[in-house]
This record gives sequence, structure tokens and C-alpha cells, in this order.
Amino acid sequence: MSRCWVKPQSNRMKKVSQTERQGVVEEQIQVRYGETDRMGHAYYANYLFWFEQARGAWCRARGFTYLQMEEAGIKLPVVEVWTKYRGEVKYDDILVVRVWVSEIKRAAVRFDYEVLNQTSGQITTEGYTWHVAINDSHKAVSFPPEIRAWMDRPLQVFGE
Amino acid sequence: MSRCWVKPQSNRMKKVSQTERQGVVEEQIQVRYGETDRMGHAYYANYLFWFEQARGAWCRARGFTYLQMEEAGIKLPVVEVWTKYRGEVKYDDILVVRVWVSEIKRAAVRFDYEVLNQTSGQITTEGYTWHVAINDSHKAVSFPPEIRAWMDRPLQVFGE
Amino acid sequence: MSRCWVKPQSNRMKKVSQTERQGVVEEQIQVRYGETDRMGHAYYANYLFWFEQARGAWCRARGFTYLQMEEAGIKLPVVEVWTKYRGEVKYDDILVVRVWVSEIKRAAVRFDYEVLNQTSGQITTEGYTWHVAINDSHKAVSFPPEIRAWMDRPLQVFGE
Amino acid sequence: MSRCWVKPQSNRMKKVSQTERQGVVEEQIQVRYGETDRMGHAYYANYLFWFEQARGAWCRARGFTYLQMEEAGIKLPVVEVWTKYRGEVKYDDILVVRVWVSEIKRAAVRFDYEVLNQTSGQITTEGYTWHVAINDSHKAVSFPPEIRAWMDRPLQVFGE
Repeated sequence: MSRCWVKPQSNRMKKVSQTERQGVVEEQIQVRYGETDRMGHAYYANYLFWFEQARGAWCRARGFTYLQMEEAGIKLPVVEVWTKYRGEVKYDDILVVRVWVSEIKRAAVRFDYEVLNQTSGQITTEGYTWHVAINDSHKAVSFPPEIRAWMDRPLQVFGE
Repeated sequence: MSRCWVKPQSNRMKKVSQTERQGVVEEQIQVRYGETDRMGHAYYANYLFWFEQARGAWCRARGFTYLQMEEAGIKLPVVEVWTKYRGEVKYDDILVVRVWVSEIKRAAVRFDYEVLNQTSGQITTEGYTWHVAINDSHKAVSFPPEIRAWMDRPLQVFGE
Repeated sequence: MSRCWVKPQSNRMKKVSQTERQGVVEEQIQVRYGETDRMGHAYYANYLFWFEQARGAWCRARGFTYLQMEEAGIKLPVVEVWTKYRGEVKYDDILVVRVWVSEIKRAAVRFDYEVLNQTSGQITTEGYTWHVAINDSHKAVSFPPEIRAWMDRPLQVFGE
Repeated sequence: MSRCWVKPQSNRMKKVSQTERQGVVEEQIQVRYGETDRMGHAYYANYLFWFEQARGAWCRARGFTYLQMEEAGIKLPVVEVWTKYRGEVKYDDILVVRVWVSEIKRAAVRFDYEVLNQTSGQITTEGYTWHVAINDSHKAVSFPPEIRAWMDRPLQVFGE
């Protein structure tokens, strides 16, 4: 369940590139019981699953799926992650994960994230992930022009 | 870190076949923080990860690895799971997962499990998983004789 | 994102009680990349997370949340799980998890599940979970009347 | 299964404090099937579980457990994570997670990590986590002197 945006509400990420203005996508996630830990919070690793789900929504909002990218021969493994946890996230909380591309290179792309906890009203998390493009032999490659064109597409109007 | 056994301490599983007597393997696992939930227990899905780790130990105790089985062209996806949760398992508890084959057919195998919580002294869990053999095209197949021979091997003496 | 039903489409579960007819709830789930394994399928433990998410939807469809039940002093830990995996579930597949109560006792409840893979068109999974009611001291208790009344409520009409 | 060290083999972390020299702890981990994804690699979120397991070993190597710290009223939630993924990690690979404290403040502590993939022989991952101390009411607090004393202890000689 995703909605689109033109500009992120807050802008804590340092690096703000041209690409970012192309549009932010929002993905709504509800915290599962199994994603919490004995402290009562969402366990810190689970945010990376949510970031991944949001990247999927980012693709879909441009009219393609990450699965189609893999089927076209390009995978985007994560090579770097940074996450700042600012506020509590608990069971059943409804989160909105905002995702946008903040930098794109010949063979790598950076996604930035901001998590709004709708239940508490707080921006609880921010982060980024760097990805490199690899081919079916797991060799680093430049984005093929057609894949790059997919990623450069403006947001499409879409329902859920 | 695994040890071998000749007979399981308790025997709650109904179906006890010949194969079972071939030997039980024990795998020690310590519960991770991220495996607990807000109730303070290990979340119920995590036991299936531990069963899988124990199956890996079962193979290793016979002198092969499950990875080698996959590399030899046979995968063993799970087709059925049953688990009974009898006692609490908490963060940092040390568990001993006992695993043995209770039934083996031409193209399927059943593993049985018993989990001893060493920290509480209780048998906390029992369960089974059924697996079918599939080839690289994901078609159901009979166990090739050499793979079946691996599985029929007696336990090897081994250190950790 | 849930929808309600009066009757499950297929009925593979053996035990069909009165309670079942009270209504089936559907929860839609899209498979995350991190939920797959090297075989390319959804790893078998992840279905238990999806069952849990569906139980949350079952409560919500009756006008309460499982969180409210815990806040009212009753937790429902899982004491038994059975799952039959019939068909493949892959990355990005859209699943509909159907959940209903098939049996309810003084101090225990059984949920049944059926997973339709909308992407493949197959009923891929069925299963059940047994839960006992425990209080804040983690002692087994009967359902308090007000909680039992929540669970006996008919389905409410609701949007997403 | 942990071993202790005086100095990390490689030293890619920028910030190297006095505390770091107090000793590095190594925790051995074998990659589970369920920790891989359809790309055949360990999914990027799982490293955070391994970091946590290594932090547990770091405590144990000083003669206390993280559980004891929680029972003494201090929890250490993660407030920041950074991870760099340099090489492939696959099913059944044996990893050595090296962990040390690179900075400790009145009310916060930073752990640094380096992951050696023993199966491939590569240093595959490095990272850090920042934690704040909170009390049972989830308020930020300074480390109580007795807890701080635990953390300042030299490594103890220990078997597994």
C-alpha cells in the first residue's frame, strides 16, 4: 500500500541530489509481533526488511518491479547501510517508510529512508542504503540503459 | 557444536521407525535477543530456524553437509511441519535440539525433534518436519542411491 | 489490508466447528526479498509470521486489536503449530491468508489458515495454531467473559 | 563459542579509542539456510543478529552476561548502525565476528565489528553500533558505576 510524494517532509539526510527531487514514495507497514523483542520494541534488524519493502514500492511507483529488474539480469545487493533510530517503534504501530534515491552513479545507487511512526506521530528512523549493480554472474556492471531509464522515470499515478 | 546419541532421552513422537535407532544428533543453540518477542519468549517461528540448524548437524554427523547434497543436485524443501511448544524459552537460554530421522521413503524423509532447554532443565518443544527430494528443476525425485547411502550412514565419531 | 468472508473457499481442515461459520478473515501479504531463501522460495518459518499477521486482522475485523487483548491482561501464546506446504511461494508473490477460529475452549483457541497465492493462483498452504490464554503472570487462565465476548463478535463491516 | 584477542587483525574503523585496546572478542557463527535469500547470499539484515550475538560474547568474555545487565536495570538499545558489506557470505559459511568497544561515554557505548568469512578467507563486513543506556522506565541514564566496572573489566581467560 503505497502513496507518492514530491518532497520529503523532513530532510535530515546530508546529501541531497537532483535525483531526490524526482519523488519520494511512501510504503505503509504495520509492525508484526514477531518483529518485536523482549524490550518491547521492534528489533533493530527488522527496519532493514522494511527498507527493502519500501524499495520495492519505489520501483512499483515507477511502473516496474524489482523482480523485473532481476529478471532483466540486474541485481542490486546492498553494500552499505546506515540507520539512526530516534524513537520507539512497537507492536502494531503503523509506520510510513518514505524512500527516495539520493544519488545514482554509473553502477551504484543510494536510497534514503525516513520512517514516520503514525501511531506515535514521530519521525522515528532515518537511514540510507548503497547498492551496486551486478549481473547474473555476480559481477559488478554499469546499469544497462533500459534499466537506467526505468529508474529515471517520473512517478506514475497509481492506486494501491 | 554438536554431539551424538544413540537414543533420545524422551520419546514423545508417536511414530518410531527403524531408522530412528541409527542415532540422534544434538545441536546446541543459544537464544538471540532478536529471536525473542515482547512477551519475553522466543517467537514461535524461530524454532523452525533451529530445527533447520539441527538438520545441518544431523548431516554433518554422518560425514556430509546439506550443502553438498544440494550441490549433488538434491534439495529437501519442507512440506509439512508440526511443533508442540511445552515450556518457556527465553533470551540467552541454552537449548539442545535433538534430531533424528523417524521415517524415510523413496522420495521423502521425516525428521523428528526434541528441544531440551538446558537453562530451565525442561524438554520444551517437540516436533517433526517432512521433506521431499527435488532436483535442480524443482521436480520431485527419488533419492539417488549415493545420496541415500549418505543418509543411511552410521554416526561418525567427531569433535566439534 | 483485510477483507471478510462468510465461508472458506476450500475446506481441507478436518475439524470444522460451529465457531468456524462465524466468519473468515483475509489478510493480504506480499512476500519480502528477505523472506526468501537460496532455493528461491519463501523460507518455511516465515509463514508463521504471516499467520500471526492474519490473526491480528481476525481480531481487527471484530472491532478489537490483539494489542488491546494483551493490554486487558490476556496473552495468547502459541502451543502447537501444524503447517502443510503444498505449492511454491516466491519473492513478490501476493498471498491471501484466510484465517478463522475452528475451535474455542474455556482457555484455548485454535485458528485455521489457508494461504492462496494470488500470483500463481494456487492454494499453497494450510495450517493451524493452538493458543492458550495466559495472564500477566504467565499463568494459564480461562478467557474472561469480556474477552470471550470480543472473540464471539460477528464480523464488522470495515474498510481497510 | 568465543575466543579472545588483544588486537583486531585489520583496522578499518576510523575511530580507535583507548578502550579498544582492552580486547577484542571473537564469536563464531555458521550461516543458516533461512538467513540466505534468493540471490544466494546472507540477507543483509541478518548481520545485525550476528552483531548482537557477538556483543553477548563480548560481555561473557568479561565475566557477565547482557541478560545480567538487563536484570540489573540497564538496557542498551541500538540508536545507530553502520555496516559495510565487502564480500559474499553464503549458506553454511563459518564466520568469525570480531567485536570490540571503540568508544564509551557516560551514557552511551559504541561497538565495532569485523566479520571474517573463514570459508572464503575474506574480511567480508565491518560495522559499528551505538547504544544508549536506559533504565527500566526506558529513560536515558548514565551507566551506574557497578555496570561500568563490568564493562571496563579486562578479558577473562575462559573456555567455551
